Amino acid sequence: MIKKVLIANRGEIAVRIIRACHELGIKTVSVYSEADKDSLHRKLATESYCIGPKLSKDSYLDMISIITIAQNTNCDAIHPGYGFLAENVDFAEMCEASNLIFIGPHYKTIGLMGVKDVAKKTMQQAGVPTVPGSDGVVKNIDDAKTISKDIGYPVIIKASYGGGGKGIRVARNEEELIQNYKLTEQEAESAFGNKNLYIEKYITNFRHIEIQVLGDYHGNVVHLGERDCTIQRRMQKLVEEANSPVLSEEIREDMGNAAVRAAKHIDYVNAGTIEFIYDLDEKKYYFMEMNTRIQVEHPVTEMVTGVDLVKMQLKVAMREEIPFTQEDIKFKGHSFEFRINAENPYKNFMPSAGKITKFIEPGGFGVRLETASYQGYTIPPYYDSMIAKLIVFGEDRRDALQVARRALNEFIIEGIDTTIPFHKNIINNEDFINNNYNTNFLEQHDIMNE
Amino acid sequence: MIKKVLIANRGEIAVRIIRACHELGIKTVSVYSEADKDSLHRKLATESYCIGPKLSKDSYLDMISIITIAQNTNCDAIHPGYGFLAENVDFAEMCEASNLIFIGPHYKTIGLMGVKDVAKKTMQQAGVPTVPGSDGVVKNIDDAKTISKDIGYPVIIKASYGGGGKGIRVARNEEELIQNYKLTEQEAESAFGNKNLYIEKYITNFRHIEIQVLGDYHGNVVHLGERDCTIQRRMQKLVEEANSPVLSEEIREDMGNAAVRAAKHIDYVNAGTIEFIYDLDEKKYYFMEMNTRIQVEHPVTEMVTGVDLVKMQLKVAMREEIPFTQEDIKFKGHSFEFRINAENPYKNFMPSAGKITKFIEPGGFGVRLETASYQGYTIPPYYDSMIAKLIVFGEDRRDALQVARRALNEFIIEGIDTTIPFHKNIINNEDFINNNYNTNFLEQHDIMNE
Repeated sequence: MIKKVLIANRGEIAVRIIRACHELGIKTVSVYSEADKDSLHRKLATESYCIGPKLSKDSYLDMISIITIAQNTNCDAIHPGYGFLAENVDFAEMCEASNLIFIGPHYKTIGLMGVKDVAKKTMQQAGVPTVPGSDGVVKNIDDAKTISKDIGYPVIIKASYGGGGKGIRVARNEEELIQNYKLTEQEAESAFGNKNLYIEKYITNFRHIEIQVLGDYHGNVVHLGERDCTIQRRMQKLVEEANSPVLSEEIREDMGNAAVRAAKHIDYVNAGTIEFIYDLDEKKYYFMEMNTRIQVEHPVTEMVTGVDLVKMQLKVAMREEIPFTQEDIKFKGHSFEFRINAENPYKNFMPSAGKITKFIEPGGFGVRLETASYQGYTIPPYYDSMIAKLIVFGEDRRDALQVARRALNEFIIEGIDTTIPFHKNIINNEDFINNNYNTNFLEQHDIMNE
Repeated sequence: MIKKVLIANRGEIAVRIIRACHELGIKTVSVYSEADKDSLHRKLATESYCIGPKLSKDSYLDMISIITIAQNTNCDAIHPGYGFLAENVDFAEMCEASNLIFIGPHYKTIGLMGVKDVAKKTMQQAGVPTVPGSDGVVKNIDDAKTISKDIGYPVIIKASYGGGGKGIRVARNEEELIQNYKLTEQEAESAFGNKNLYIEKYITNFRHIEIQVLGDYHGNVVHLGERDCTIQRRMQKLVEEANSPVLSEEIREDMGNAAVRAAKHIDYVNAGTIEFIYDLDEKKYYFMEMNTRIQVEHPVTEMVTGVDLVKMQLKVAMREEIPFTQEDIKFKGHSFEFRINAENPYKNFMPSAGKITKFIEPGGFGVRLETASYQGYTIPPYYDSMIAKLIVFGEDRRDALQVARRALNEFIIEGIDTTIPFHKNIINNEDFINNNYNTNFLEQHDIMNE
């Protein structure tokens, strides 16, 4: 039994986890940096403790302090949320060594999925389609040339330990390959301490589609359908939806089965997401990566399935069996999530910290808000710029868009700039409405000036 | 087609209607009193106009001004919400005469259901069970004595044109009957201009259960299940839930069918509610009254059916057919509504107007808020004290109560007194949790001091 959980995170996801814990009768301990003393995640927890100065490395990433507080407050478990320590192998291992339940998969699983070429190979073994490319790490530039000629240009060069948009380069011909191979190798060595590279065919006309999976300690694995996260800016997701409006029923089922197969192959436990490239030309899907944690966009899945994913994480961590089978999961309606960031979309998304002087939330039927912000709260400039997630639900995509439109119009935030005007433009864009777009949507549309 | 609707109401229900209109692409006109110039219903509408001074009789009840504004702004229809003019026969008739669609049933139907003994007789004709009592109006005191002896004491004496808790008295024996008959007759004449009385058996151990119905202009009538509104204080509902935890499947179906039969019998069009007394001793239900409008507690029905009732009202008014059959309506989960009033539950529910200095809304999965309040808003003292409705949803009653508990704990309103502490106590009361109560719950429990 878990009676008390330390939440090693901040902002909306910390609040989300506190809510799920309290609804299950579990006490919570929140930690906050000196810059977060007015944060809602501090106020809503059963207990809360200052963990260090404003910078993440001195607070939310301070593993030893976090574990010490968890022990001193008699916590049974730690929920890492997303970001910060959520996919840190060392932290998950330290939790285990400290007799604290890490609410997530085993640290070895996090490690396995953290090394990109190893993850890819593992997925191939599980019979999950992967993007054509090198068989693991490329030996040298000659090897790279042979492989690239074989799979055909353009190709993408990726660092095995890469992430966050770093250690990744496209080559459109052999000349670019020679040049970028060297650059990527240098960057990989300096950024990740490991120069291993691998090569893949570069697919350009695709949708980002991911499958939510859930596994327990009793060998059960189910999937909860897909999320379409194709609207991105510089690899950062901005709008997500469930279900995806581009999948045929056949491919949807096929992808779901592949994700379950993948998770079973690695004995996956807890909530996880398998991200896929969905090639719009070929109508084929390929494994991209696995995220071994709860994701920012998990609410859209909750809206269409009715399953509370964070409660499920807690139940699974308590060694409960998943209380439903694959057949029990029914999908109903359509849901969007809009990430409201404290950024100015008219000024190239320049971050905008400061005091919120007015905060009038949208409400009513089909509207859900996830936020740790409130009127009078000052957004600190030290962390991620996302200050709220607006989630809407409707009978179908068209209905959900109508709810989104009125909810975005109702949402008033003053004192700081936000991406609300950006989202208003997105949902009025014809290509978005008509589902005619790929991951290059924002390069193809000058959304703030159309 | 309806392109523009005037909303003849204020506060949360005006906001609710504006939202539904905007989601359907319908423009809105709101009217506001001089005391309501900062109200959200003014700000959210497409256009808004001051309708008169603070007192309702000079503003929200000023029929001619409202109709004039509707005509001058080219509205096609008027939505009356609940309260104010929602069940005013004259107003509905004036709308029709002014070529404005009144969003509700025909004025003759409103009139029919507005006279209590006539409504009761009509329901008997439709084969709906009614409380044993006089066959229509009582002739005189001797007639009253005979009937009361016949049905057995205690009995209840009711004015035909009564309402709002007035013109109603209980008699436990013949002595009380003689005394109260006279008093009620006097009160009825002075309050309603009509001294007609009728007599019914007084049922004491009952739940207030009502069935939501919906009819269209094509002869279709469906019901959307029941709401249990047993938690009341002085005949005012405080907590409502769907579905009712006391009904057997057999009685539930039976009541639903009776409600549909009743609505069909009177050619009912639009959303309406048939209120029943559910006798806990006899396990029998009896018609109480029909409300020919949208009700405060409609959201709990929306949560368990997924049907947007206000959008349905608009669609029906546009002569659309109800887009689903009785069989299509599926019930899922459990929902509660808590009426948050600006009242001090520690001081006998004394009204508490004034400025809201802090307003932090609960949010997250399973939480819906209906409000026209916000931080910095001043609650005027001239209208109904309800300032927000907190609606929660869960898999089952237990789960919904857990969501309610954490949402009520999160809800922060400062600057005025509210009934939030009262609701926190209600949902922690053992009898409430165990479903062991009737309409006398608040007389039997000193809820603020237990």
